[in-house]
Amino acid sequence: MPSAAVRLMQTAEASGVEICFANPGTTEMPLVAALDEVAGIRAVLGLFEGVCTGCADGWGRMRRRPALTLLHLGPGFANGIANLHNARRARSPVLNLVGDHTRKHLGFDAPLTSDIESLARPVSAWVATATSPTRLASDFSEALVACLSPPGQVATLIVPADVQWEQASGPADLPQAPSRTRVPTERIRSIAERLRSSPASGLLLGGRALGETGQRAADRIARATGAKLFAETFPARWERGGNLPQIERLAYFPEQARATFAGLEALVVADAPDPVAFFGYRDQESDLAPEGAIARLSAPEENAEDALEALADELGAPTRALSAPAPAPANPQENTLNPASMAHVLASRLPEDAIVVDEAATSGLPFYSAPAPRHTLLSLTGGAIGQGLPCAAGAALACPERPVVAFQADGSAQYTVQALFTLARENLNVVVVLCANRAYRILRVELARAGITKPGPRALSLTSLEDPEIDWVALARGYGVPADRVEDLPAFDRVLHRALAEPGPFLVEAIL
Amino acid sequence: MPSAAVRLMQTAEASGVEICFANPGTTEMPLVAALDEVAGIRAVLGLFEGVCTGCADGWGRMRRRPALTLLHLGPGFANGIANLHNARRARSPVLNLVGDHTRKHLGFDAPLTSDIESLARPVSAWVATATSPTRLASDFSEALVACLSPPGQVATLIVPADVQWEQASGPADLPQAPSRTRVPTERIRSIAERLRSSPASGLLLGGRALGETGQRAADRIARATGAKLFAETFPARWERGGNLPQIERLAYFPEQARATFAGLEALVVADAPDPVAFFGYRDQESDLAPEGAIARLSAPEENAEDALEALADELGAPTRALSAPAPAPANPQENTLNPASMAHVLASRLPEDAIVVDEAATSGLPFYSAPAPRHTLLSLTGGAIGQGLPCAAGAALACPERPVVAFQADGSAQYTVQALFTLARENLNVVVVLCANRAYRILRVELARAGITKPGPRALSLTSLEDPEIDWVALARGYGVPADRVEDLPAFDRVLHRALAEPGPFLVEAIL
Repeated sequence: MPSAAVRLMQTAEASGVEICFANPGTTEMPLVAALDEVAGIRAVLGLFEGVCTGCADGWGRMRRRPALTLLHLGPGFANGIANLHNARRARSPVLNLVGDHTRKHLGFDAPLTSDIESLARPVSAWVATATSPTRLASDFSEALVACLSPPGQVATLIVPADVQWEQASGPADLPQAPSRTRVPTERIRSIAERLRSSPASGLLLGGRALGETGQRAADRIARATGAKLFAETFPARWERGGNLPQIERLAYFPEQARATFAGLEALVVADAPDPVAFFGYRDQESDLAPEGAIARLSAPEENAEDALEALADELGAPTRALSAPAPAPANPQENTLNPASMAHVLASRLPEDAIVVDEAATSGLPFYSAPAPRHTLLSLTGGAIGQGLPCAAGAALACPERPVVAFQADGSAQYTVQALFTLARENLNVVVVLCANRAYRILRVELARAGITKPGPRALSLTSLEDPEIDWVALARGYGVPADRVEDLPAFDRVLHRALAEPGPFLVEAIL
Repeated sequence: MPSAAVRLMQTAEASGVEICFANPGTTEMPLVAALDEVAGIRAVLGLFEGVCTGCADGWGRMRRRPALTLLHLGPGFANGIANLHNARRARSPVLNLVGDHTRKHLGFDAPLTSDIESLARPVSAWVATATSPTRLASDFSEALVACLSPPGQVATLIVPADVQWEQASGPADLPQAPSRTRVPTERIRSIAERLRSSPASGLLLGGRALGETGQRAADRIARATGAKLFAETFPARWERGGNLPQIERLAYFPEQARATFAGLEALVVADAPDPVAFFGYRDQESDLAPEGAIARLSAPEENAEDALEALADELGAPTRALSAPAPAPANPQENTLNPASMAHVLASRLPEDAIVVDEAATSGLPFYSAPAPRHTLLSLTGGAIGQGLPCAAGAALACPERPVVAFQADGSAQYTVQALFTLARENLNVVVVLCANRAYRILRVELARAGITKPGPRALSLTSLEDPEIDWVALARGYGVPADRVEDLPAFDRVLHRALAEPGPFLVEAIL
């Protein structure tokens, strides 16, 4: 009879799981072997667990179905936590399988023993430790339902090695995950009334509201009421560009966001959290909206797209066709490579239907105001840096027909630099635009905001990536990814154009 | 008046803290600025938090005083957990400072909010969240006492940003940490009696018992009783070579370790955990010693060195001078670079008083039987791979006058590859011997042990580091570390010799 591990993988395959991002060890060997017993689950190696979990997040955002991760005990899981934190904030469905010692061995406090559940809880909506081979496949089903329950969740199933290798019947039944619930009509009517009676209003879109349907409905609402449209600062997935409505991205710094909202009597929030500052500052409030302005259209588990359409209908708003704005003409005089000029070239060179993963931090800001063809943008939802490269790899695997641009800050890229290996091994269609400003620039800004306008040598050293300067072309080639360095705008344009035209991965080190 | 953060750093400096391994973010800026307000605390940047915590472990093992780490919120701390797990198993004193949101901001569930304490508990003997600026320095003192309490512990102090930046008086008083307690005379007498009456006996040394004092006493005991001497498999710090007694390292696989112990009537355990298998296997027991054989000489918080000397005295064992064994002569015919030939050359080329950090996994085994000059060996105590390079960096900073060899497996090195940047930035005297066998070799072995003798394509792919082959020379140079690749033994000998003779870091990629 097959092992419980095989029953688990059979259940996964039957339920439509297609991929497993793995960095396994001894305690996961039966699950590794089980991957070879099913036809439909691709196994992708990450050299570091944060690569695996970041890949699963990227896959989940694009497919809206969970990828598996396969991680080794507490320390292996711990290495994946930062990107699971981002996945949790992105509401990505991710299903972690974590091996543990055999049940008998756990009492001996062997070197790799640790409290995995305590590590898993902060990033997982659902955590369990499997205790029986016969129930393992149904434990897995339960984890899967947790992943797929609105708004999308991280689930972690810890599986002792002997629970994996013992025999079991199966596979398990596949229970249905609940659907998103409908926003009640009374709430939609009441918000419509509020918008009609508020001369100054806004609509803050997040989550699923930043899909095409939600944005088109929001545009109708804006036309009917004069409401301004905003996108949350770090959306999990934002359909943008082309003939989609132009929506202002809410500023990162709280004083700027508060200025944007100033004077609004109503701020309708659709599938975004109430807007709050990213960090707390001296003499600044944490909430960003004017007092009493927030009117919540939809909660995370509700259907925001339907609600926005119903609200537009309730307001009697006509539909309208939008045309794509013309790309801003290139400035033939411009030679300097800086965040603004780079954003302009990147936006204008972007292939139709590209996926852009934005972890460019300060270097990425100008991209949000550059007219671009239709694309999908994935951003750093949880602030745990090191998300960009793995998320791009996961998105590329999820959508092999779409070009992917990893728009990436140099400091952040270091946390999961091993993702370059996965780009090469899987020959993924990812162009990394590596913004090499050789500093944790945002921290220099934050030091100044904290009143430290003349940082001492230690503060400067801890926020600098110079000494030595990292050679990103060497790192990329070391992992098998072709790469080139550019120092001016024409070279960036030329190399980017060539990289996008060729299949497979490429890294452009843009010296800023 | 200075900030509470400055008071904390003043307290740290006054208590002898010399170094802070940091990867800070916005919520740690007051602590970063405070590092510039004291003269005596060096700030060392890690590009990834696992580098910081691994460095602190290496520092703690060599200095037996805590280094600070400075980490950013839950995700930053999480990235450091794997090497804190190793530090916990090594009983290294490590003091983590983790920033958190301001107290007011914590209620708003901003993107980076998470349950840091739940993440910290599995690797920390002491965890607290500071709640008051006026008490921050004394919270720090308490953490320091926890670190220094026998046998050496990890402490984690979480500090909200406003608790850092508000004004406070100070610094705090410096309470004394408790000393190791003395092993009671009755226990020593009873163990002496047991050894006298057991024809077949052994002595398993771990922790502090593997210092010079403990080993010389153990050698006297062995001479007096015929007891065999064993070292725990993964010692935190083992003084070895030269004229120290030759002690057998306990085998990794449980069936081998059990065979080693077979027939022993008494196994005296000094400062090591009771011997248990690293992993649990089908049809194998977890404990390794013959039933009833274990006689515990010292608990972790007791003084094992004194106890071993007292036991030797109780047994009336004379002291003896040992001479260093002659190094095995080089085989001039040998040309092939393999783990055995590499170990031989490495051991014979080792400079006197070197520090060897062993994370060479399967490639490192032959080193333990090669005669070598006196050196200190640090090993992978907790099994969380990615410890070698950072631990070597921390040891080199702790002992700038001693050469350090990072004896390193390629798969394991990837988890904290960013440590190469720290080697270059701090110009550390570390030679990395990178064993490039381009596989997770141990997992191939473990697959076979699990009965999977013909792994399928997925199992093969998940245990292979080929496709693409990682170019370690390119990676090292990308981080500013000079490097060379060798494919035969004479080249290894030549390049190693040159690398050891020159100051600063160097990486030798040894193709196995």
